Formats: sequence, structure tokens, C-alpha cells
Amino acid sequence: MELLPRIKGPDDVKALSPEQLPILANEIRQEIIQVTSDNGGHIGPNLGVVELSIALHRHFSTPKDRFVFDVAHQGYVHKLLTGRYGDKFKKIRSTGGLSGFLTRDESEHDCYGAGHAGTALSAALGMATARDLKGSDEHVVAVIGDAALTCGITMEALNNIKASTKRLIVILNDNKWSIAPNVGAIPGYLNELITNPVYNRLHNDLESFLESVPGGNAIRKFGKKVKAETKDFFSDQESSLFEKYGLRYIGPIDGHDQELLDQYMTFAKKCEEPVILHVLTTKGKGFEAALNNPEKFHGTSPFCPETGQSKPSKPGKPPVYQDVFGRALVDFAKKDKRIVGITGAMPSGTGMKHLHDELPGQYFDVGIAEEHAVLFAAGLATSDIKPVVAIYSTFLQRAYDCIIHDVCLQDLDVMFCMDRAGLSPNDGPTHHGLFDISYLRCVPRAIIMAPKDEDELVDMMKTGIDHKGATFIRYPRGNGVGVKMKDEPEAIEIGKAELLREGDDVMIWALGPMVNDALKLASKISAEQGLHVGVVNARFAKPIDTELLLEHAKSCRLIATIEENVLKGGFGSAVLEELQDAGLDTPVVRIGWPDKFVTHGNTVEELRGDNGMSPQQMEDDILNRFRAIPQESVTADAIRFPSGK
Amino acid sequence: MELLPRIKGPDDVKALSPEQLPILANEIRQEIIQVTSDNGGHIGPNLGVVELSIALHRHFSTPKDRFVFDVAHQGYVHKLLTGRYGDKFKKIRSTGGLSGFLTRDESEHDCYGAGHAGTALSAALGMATARDLKGSDEHVVAVIGDAALTCGITMEALNNIKASTKRLIVILNDNKWSIAPNVGAIPGYLNELITNPVYNRLHNDLESFLESVPGGNAIRKFGKKVKAETKDFFSDQESSLFEKYGLRYIGPIDGHDQELLDQYMTFAKKCEEPVILHVLTTKGKGFEAALNNPEKFHGTSPFCPETGQSKPSKPGKPPVYQDVFGRALVDFAKKDKRIVGITGAMPSGTGMKHLHDELPGQYFDVGIAEEHAVLFAAGLATSDIKPVVAIYSTFLQRAYDCIIHDVCLQDLDVMFCMDRAGLSPNDGPTHHGLFDISYLRCVPRAIIMAPKDEDELVDMMKTGIDHKGATFIRYPRGNGVGVKMKDEPEAIEIGKAELLREGDDVMIWALGPMVNDALKLASKISAEQGLHVGVVNARFAKPIDTELLLEHAKSCRLIATIEENVLKGGFGSAVLEELQDAGLDTPVVRIGWPDKFVTHGNTVEELRGDNGMSPQQMEDDILNRFRAIPQESVTADAIRFPSGK
Repeated sequence: MELLPRIKGPDDVKALSPEQLPILANEIRQEIIQVTSDNGGHIGPNLGVVELSIALHRHFSTPKDRFVFDVAHQGYVHKLLTGRYGDKFKKIRSTGGLSGFLTRDESEHDCYGAGHAGTALSAALGMATARDLKGSDEHVVAVIGDAALTCGITMEALNNIKASTKRLIVILNDNKWSIAPNVGAIPGYLNELITNPVYNRLHNDLESFLESVPGGNAIRKFGKKVKAETKDFFSDQESSLFEKYGLRYIGPIDGHDQELLDQYMTFAKKCEEPVILHVLTTKGKGFEAALNNPEKFHGTSPFCPETGQSKPSKPGKPPVYQDVFGRALVDFAKKDKRIVGITGAMPSGTGMKHLHDELPGQYFDVGIAEEHAVLFAAGLATSDIKPVVAIYSTFLQRAYDCIIHDVCLQDLDVMFCMDRAGLSPNDGPTHHGLFDISYLRCVPRAIIMAPKDEDELVDMMKTGIDHKGATFIRYPRGNGVGVKMKDEPEAIEIGKAELLREGDDVMIWALGPMVNDALKLASKISAEQGLHVGVVNARFAKPIDTELLLEHAKSCRLIATIEENVLKGGFGSAVLEELQDAGLDTPVVRIGWPDKFVTHGNTVEELRGDNGMSPQQMEDDILNRFRAIPQESVTADAIRFPSGK
Repeated sequence: MELLPRIKGPDDVKALSPEQLPILANEIRQEIIQVTSDNGGHIGPNLGVVELSIALHRHFSTPKDRFVFDVAHQGYVHKLLTGRYGDKFKKIRSTGGLSGFLTRDESEHDCYGAGHAGTALSAALGMATARDLKGSDEHVVAVIGDAALTCGITMEALNNIKASTKRLIVILNDNKWSIAPNVGAIPGYLNELITNPVYNRLHNDLESFLESVPGGNAIRKFGKKVKAETKDFFSDQESSLFEKYGLRYIGPIDGHDQELLDQYMTFAKKCEEPVILHVLTTKGKGFEAALNNPEKFHGTSPFCPETGQSKPSKPGKPPVYQDVFGRALVDFAKKDKRIVGITGAMPSGTGMKHLHDELPGQYFDVGIAEEHAVLFAAGLATSDIKPVVAIYSTFLQRAYDCIIHDVCLQDLDVMFCMDRAGLSPNDGPTHHGLFDISYLRCVPRAIIMAPKDEDELVDMMKTGIDHKGATFIRYPRGNGVGVKMKDEPEAIEIGKAELLREGDDVMIWALGPMVNDALKLASKISAEQGLHVGVVNARFAKPIDTELLLEHAKSCRLIATIEENVLKGGFGSAVLEELQDAGLDTPVVRIGWPDKFVTHGNTVEELRGDNGMSPQQMEDDILNRFRAIPQESVTADAIRFPSGK
């Protein structure tokens, strides 16, 4: 490393000579490959934007100028160019290291954080409008992927740009992929822009501009040469999709050609109208393994930096929930042709790829379009098709209104499989799924389930498939428990909990993977404290097994609840509500996530420990509450209570 | 009425002669004007689609064929044509009458319900895909307004059509309005399609098709005549926005010309590719007053059918919350230029029109684009602008992820003013705002307020403006309480409740407008039962005034909570959580909305009575719970409790 360690900020990038830039680019790629091979991370998108990020920092000056990166998983290069090379970068996505995304509190150069796609254009338009309102003169640059155009929010923003500002630079970083290859009409249209000669003519003022700048003629010649080969690299034409939205479209250009990028950015900066610069990049550029397998190397676990081979996981690990889900879905869909699977650009992450591979006719990838995914499912459900919508818990927040207004209000028969319910440790707060019980529990007709292990996941899938109405199954990222899978899944009676261990001092009502933690806790407390601690696998966050709960409330001295959800409005609150409705005052201690956003970190265990959910902390909570129960519950109030009232 | 009473279903529409159609159209208009003048309702949109709806029912056959009307407030004509003329139509939007929207349970001719915009295209695509999967042959027709194109979901659906089906008919009902005039680039683009001669050329096969059908030549001639006048009525051209999405674009045509509609529908039915038919209609067609004031007559309260004058409201009624909000916002924004207002196509409904009229530079209407509205606000907030986002409670569900992922996670300074929190009686389940406390309470950093009257609304606005972070104020539709407004608003300490009436038997913690109900209840119960019943104006659903609550939990025998939100996860649950956290077992009775969707009806009072929230029911709930409190709370468990554990 010759140059990268000396880059302390954008000024140092600007001070480099053009000849030094390829050296810097190469060093950045080496650093990213090395660091992600250790930590995992979004290697592919970052290798694709090395030259683009260098060009941005040579032409603009953050923090005064603003870069808004959509999804922000492609911000590693930007981080390295803004003084974040070093130990914290080497620990990116790990405890104490940098975030794998952008967050406003990490650096003054990061004006906007993200983790979900499609937000950049709207946010950038807000910044540009604020600038216009205040009369300042900074540049605002939104960097969006082609996949962002499959997301409706981006289109809402596009519709508003022209009316809101005269100055906004949009970089369309077009690499043909979201995580999987992009789907739908717009990606096809972008391809047409690139390949169709009719779209390729030089706009007069762009042409004369290029004549006037150093190197401009070379670019023109290069462009004409490429055009002669029918694969054009720039065009500026009035009838592009973007010009219908009032943006000036320029490009497409090769996003790995530093000289071209420099020329076009100089031009874009001068435009007194909103402009979209179409930049073609290659995901994984500079790393053979990533080029050969773009989906795997979009975001990856640790790997060998020479070969790209994944580092071997411990032998004998149980299958991940995602594969269990995906394979079971194939089995169900083979037997019942009414079943279809819907994913929002996440075939691998959700495990839906199995359906794609085996029953492509029953598989739909709708792009980064969670709202459409749910409404499309609702439409299918009106016509006797049974859709299974697999969306991460945190991304399902996007479709909240569609769940209420379309699926549940109309009592339509749709099954939702939400993985990443609980923690996504390395990704952090934009990816944890800690709110879904709270936001779904208030929705009439919603059935909310959480399996204690991978076998029960399949039973719950059968339950959801058999049930006529909206069901939601939440399960964690990663490995199952390692239980034996039944040959044939069995549907569970809706709202029926499972008593796993008797107890009359404390009864722990646990949900989902916390059931196993509860069993360990119960054994330990029983053995060490001489208490009778029981465990219920609640299975349902809604409806709760009221009958069993009230029985326990009457027979036990303390009810404890444990859940992988925030405490506010979660499963524990459902238990409180049930007891209140029944007029019971059995003490309850609720264990779950606090009312704050949880950062990223190495492991689930570590983050639990930081948030009051380590095994010891849970044990202390239960014992402290138990010990506080008065021996006699005669309260002053009760004594004061005059009879006959 | 000669024809309309005899229309029992689509077959009767088909049986009419072309000469009878204008008579039917006229009768439909008279019926709609009469009925909406009595009941209020969406008169403007329905008067605009009379001929279009007739044409649909002459060319397609529901329930086999499917019509999906976006928003579905324009479904009155469809209802009249499918056998719903009569008493229930005359009581539309009232208790026992038809819904003002479409709902699947009202008729087999209604395959999809709505009330929120932008869902039709996705749902219709689901139906078309289901048809293709099953191999049946019905037609699926989505009827969308031009405003639906400002909503991102519609664009997500557009992106997926080509890949999903070869047969889908989209009717673009273009009337230039959502509720207010449409905003943004796309409405401008549609106008260009209509007026720019370059877009107007007859596609060969459309031309030859028109030659081959009766009347086709007349249409061609008509088209050419109009073209000569530079205002063209049909075109079919490859570079339209829609063709970039893979839809065949035909039109624009006059949506009030029954013959033209017939010809084009015949053509659209034959297309073996997805097609969009651009139909120009006039909102309020056939009613002078509505033509002169499209915004008022989009959806209106009862009026005089001759003059269009609103029926006088009772004199001396207090101002509506919406006007109080709108005027106060103007006052705040005049003093602080950092304050801007954002609405999603609802300037009148929200009261934001006052800002538009007085400070247009600080006002933004972003179209039916709630997600963009919130993200745009987030972007502004990063740049020292203070956005006030006014969105109905139910529509804010659309932007749920943006609230979590963008505003609260980034701790940005945005104030949300949610009206229609509580009931929107005539509109029904798609418009009631009964979930927001539950879905917001779990979001870290969210401050949730509800004023007891219109003066406190302004105090809470000042509180939200002064606070650095996300605040949410929820208030009802309609008239305030009639209190005197202070000259200068006063900020309220965050999380501070207001004790309005002392009491040590029962303390009612009430939120928002229920505070006034609580005061009446407390007087009545105290007078009639000899109990000491106190009342707290909770003001905050989050954070709750824990100090005061725990004081009451210790000093009172029963806590009652009253809220205009579902009980699951709502304000009452927050009270339960606080008591549990403090280890207190004071009995609590929670009063709020049950776990079901609430239908439409005449009044708030009536719907409350149907759902356990009449004054008498609330009184019974409180007294029953109070009487069930044991005189001595020594439980069997407490006695069993061995000391020393």
C-alpha cells in the first residue's frame, strides 16, 4: 500500500495525479478484498464503484457537497477516501468496527444513512430543496443502482424532481444486478438505452462542451468508434424515460474509465437542470471469483482472498432456516399447484431460489418492490391462488399498509414468511427484525407464529397453507437447532401453545428460538434455586393460547415472557393484555429488546449481552422479580377498601 | 327514472340500444347528484366515469371478468349497473347503506376493495397472473386515475407487467386531478401526450382495425379532424412512457363519447399484449357546481342539488381540527422560515391549503406519494429545515418503513401531524385511523402526542417544533371542542400528563378527545356511585408520564384507560407495561377499539356504540372491573409462598 494509507480525506484524493489514480484504485480493491475476506461484506458492489467514488471525490467536496448512496452498502470506497482507512475499516461490520452501511454518526462525510433500497433520490431531493430554500450552493449527488428503479419510492421521487429543484445530479450506477439479476421492464429498457443505436446521438451542447475541454475530442472519437461497433457509450436524447420526468439524461458511459468519468462529472456540475448520468459498472470488478459469481459476492461471508472459496463452516452445523423454508416450499408447491412463491429481489437470501430452480412457473421475483409483492399476492389470492411471500422482517415494514388495507381487511389468503426476525448482527439496525410482532399484533385477522426450531417452521408453513387468511411466520437468520425433521409436517391448531416443562413457581412463556434459551434457563434455575420453573413454547404471538395462559396465571406465582422483539407492544404485552382482560394480577416479567435501535456487532450473543438479554441477565430478571413478590399480597389499598361499594 | 331502475345487472346494460345509453347516463348522473347531495360522497369522480363504466359493462362480463378500480371511490356507477340501485344505494356511506368504496363482501361484481390509492394495477396483475396459471380466459381490467401514476406502487406494478402476463387491460382515467390538481412530471407528461402532435399517429393495425368495424371510419375521420386542430384524441406510438414499460399505449380518447369508448374497448379486448387505454374524462361532468369547483366536489358533505351550496352546518360550531392545524402552521412558518409543510395530495383535507395560500414557498405537495413525502422530509431535516408532514393516520401506514429506517433511526427532526386519528365514520375501515399508536409506539425515539382539544393541538405543534427529533401528533377529523384559544401557544414538557380531576378510587387515564368523555364519565360515576373518580389528560402515548402514573397506581384502586386506538398494543398496553416494569399490580381496565375492522356508519357515536365504546358501556366496564376487585387481595398463591426462597 503506497497511496491509500496517505488518503486522509477528499483533498488528498484531489491532489493525486491522473497517473496515480489506477494505483489508488488497485490498492482500494486489494484492501476491500482482504477486509471482506476476513469479515464478510458487500464486496461485489464496492469493487464496482472504485473509479466512480474516486471521481466523485475529485469533483465534489464533502461534507459541504452531499453524496447520498442508495442502500449504502456500496460506501466502502467512500469510507476509505474520507479518512477511514485503518483498524476500524479492517473491523468493518464487526464489534467496534465501521458500519457496513453509511450512518450519519460515523463521519461528517456521510450525510445520509441507509440499509434499505430506494431512499436516496427522495432524500437527495430534500437536500437539494433545502439548499434552494436557504440559498446556499452545495452540490447534491444521489448515487442509485439500476435496481432502485424497480422500487416505487424512486419513481415517486423522480416525479417530484422537476417541480422541486433545478440542480440535482443523479448517478445511475448500472450493473444489471440488485442482489440477483434485475427483473422487469425498466432493467430491459436500460439495456436498450445502451445497445440501441437510435438512442445514441450526441447532444449539441454536450458535443461542443467536449470539444472545449482537454481530452474531450478523444472521448468523442472513442464514442464514435464504439458507436460504429453498435455498442454505444454515450447518448443524450430527449425521449428517454428520464427526460419524460424532466431530467436531462447523459450517458451511458464506462464507469471504470477515470478520464471519461472526470469529463462527464465536470459537465454534470455545470448543468442548470436536474441531470442523470448513466454509468455502466461491473459488479466485482478486479476480483475474478466475484466476476464469476456476482450473486454470491454481492454480500458474502468470509472467504479465501486468493480463490474466493468460502471459509468452511464448522462441520455438522444444522441447516439454515432459509434452506429449510425454501426446500419445504418446493415440497408444498409440488403437491399443490395453487401455491406460488413471491420474493422481492431476494431469491438467495430468503431461500426462495429452491423454488426458482425447481418450479420456476410457480416463482415470482418482483424486484425491490415489497408493496407490489404484497398487492400482487393479494390479487392472486382473490383468484384461488395461495401466495407465499418471503420478505425479511425489516423490509416487510415497507408493505405495512398493503398488509392492513389489502390483505387483512379483505381477509385474503396469503402466507408471509419473514426471516431475519431477530438479529442480523453484522448488518446492524437497518437489518434487525425486532418490530414485527408489535406492528402486526394490532392488525385484525393477522395470525403470527414463530417456530422454536426448523422442524416446527415446516409445521407452521403447513399451518399457514391450510389456514384461510393472513398468516405470518417469523424466524431467525442462520442455522436451525439441529432437530430431526419429521417425514411429514403436521399443521398446528391456530393459537395452541405447547407446554414443554411443568412448573408452578415460574412459568416461562417463550416465543420462537427463545424457547431453547428458556429451557436452559429453567433447568438452571430449577437446579440451582430449587424452584419449579416451567416452559411453554408459545408458538403464536397472536392469537395467544389464552386458556393455557390463564391456567398458568392461576397456578404459578410468576409468568416470564421471552421474545426476540422490542418490549413495547410485543409478545409480553400481549400476555399482559390477556391477564388484564381476565382480571388476573399474576406478576409478569417481560424479557425482550429495549426501546432503542440496536447497533451491529459480531454475534447475536454479544448484542444480547449488551442489551440485557444474556442468559445471566435473563436469569437475574426472573429471580429478582420472583423475589419481589410479596409473601402476602394484602395491599394497603385492599385494606382501605370499604365493603359494599 | 326510466331505465336505471330496470338495470339489474350487466346483461341489462348490454341489452340497451346505443340510443338509450345517453338516457341511462343522464339518469345515473341525476341519481348520483341526488344521493350525494343527501349523504355526501365522491360525486366528482363518479360523474366523470359514467360513460366509461357503461362501456366497461357492455364489453365485459363481471363477475367472470374482473374490474379493479383504483381507490374505488369512483365505483358508484359500477354499483348502479350491477343491481345496486335502490334503498341501499340511497343510503350509501350511511349506516346500513352501501360502502362509499368497493368491498369484496358487498357484491360478487366487486373483486377487489380499496380506499387507498395506487393498489389497482398490482392487484389486477395478480389476477391476470392467476388466470394465466389456471388457464382460464377472463379479462382483467384495471381502472386507474392519472394520480395513481404519482404513487410508487403503480410504477412497481408497471415494471412487472410485461414479465408476468400477456393480457391485461389498463384504463388510464385521466382527469388531471387527484383530490387537488395533480403535481409532478408525469401529469405534465400526460398532458404532452394529449397536446403534442408528434405523439399522434395512427398505428397501422389500429387503423386497419378501425376500418374493419362499423363506425370505425367515422372515428378515423373524427380523429383526423381533431388532429388537424392540433388537439388529438388518439395516438399509438412506440416511445411513450408506457411502451418503455412494455405496454401498448392507445389513446388518448374522449371518455364521454360512448361510441369511441365502444370501439376502443373492442380493440383492447383483442390485444394479445398488455395495453393501456388513455381516456380523458371530466371530473364532475354534468353538474355545473362540480365543474366549477372540482376540489370541493371530489368528495363533499351534503349540498343543495340545485345550486351546489353546502348545507349549512349548525351555527356556532367550533372550528375543525384541520383548520386549526393549517392556520397555526402558517403562524409558525411565518415566524420560522425553516418550517415547511408537506402534503401527499391532500391540501384541503389536511388543512395544509392555508400554508399553500399564504406561504407557497414553504409548501410542498408531492402527490399520492407518502413514502417520498417522509423521505423528502428526512432529506430536508438533514439540512436544517424543519418539515411538518401532514398525512392522515391511515395513509401514514404507507410510509411506515421510512418512519423507522429513515427518520427515527437517523434521529431526524421531523414533525408528523396525523389527522383522521380515530374514526372517519362515513368512509369506513379504509379510512379510520385506529392503529397508529400501536404501530408507532414500538419505534424507538418516536414521541406520540394527542391533544384533548384544539387549543392543545397548537400547544403540541409548538412542542413538536421545539423538540429535536421525530414527533407525531394524532387528532381527529372534524370539529374541535370549542375551547378558547390562547393568544400564544405554549410548549408542553415531553412526557408530562395533566391531572384534571382528583380521585382515589378510580383514575381514568384518557388520551386525546377521549379526555372529554372521561370527564363526563367521572362526574357521572362520582355523582351516582359515590366513588372518587379522577381524570388525567395523558397527552403522550409515548413517553408516558411514568411518575404520575405510578403515583396513581399506588394511590388509586383502579386505573382505567380510554383511547381512540385498537386495544392491542395501544395506549392502555403502554400503561400495563409501565405498571409491570414497576412491579405494581394495580388493576387496570382498558377501553379502546376491539381487534376487528370497523365498518362505516353515520356517526362516531353510533360506531362507538356498536363497538363497546358508548358512554354507558365505558361506565359499565369501569364499574364492573371496580366491583371485581377483591376486598382482600390475599391470594392462595401468596399464602402458599414459602418464606426464604
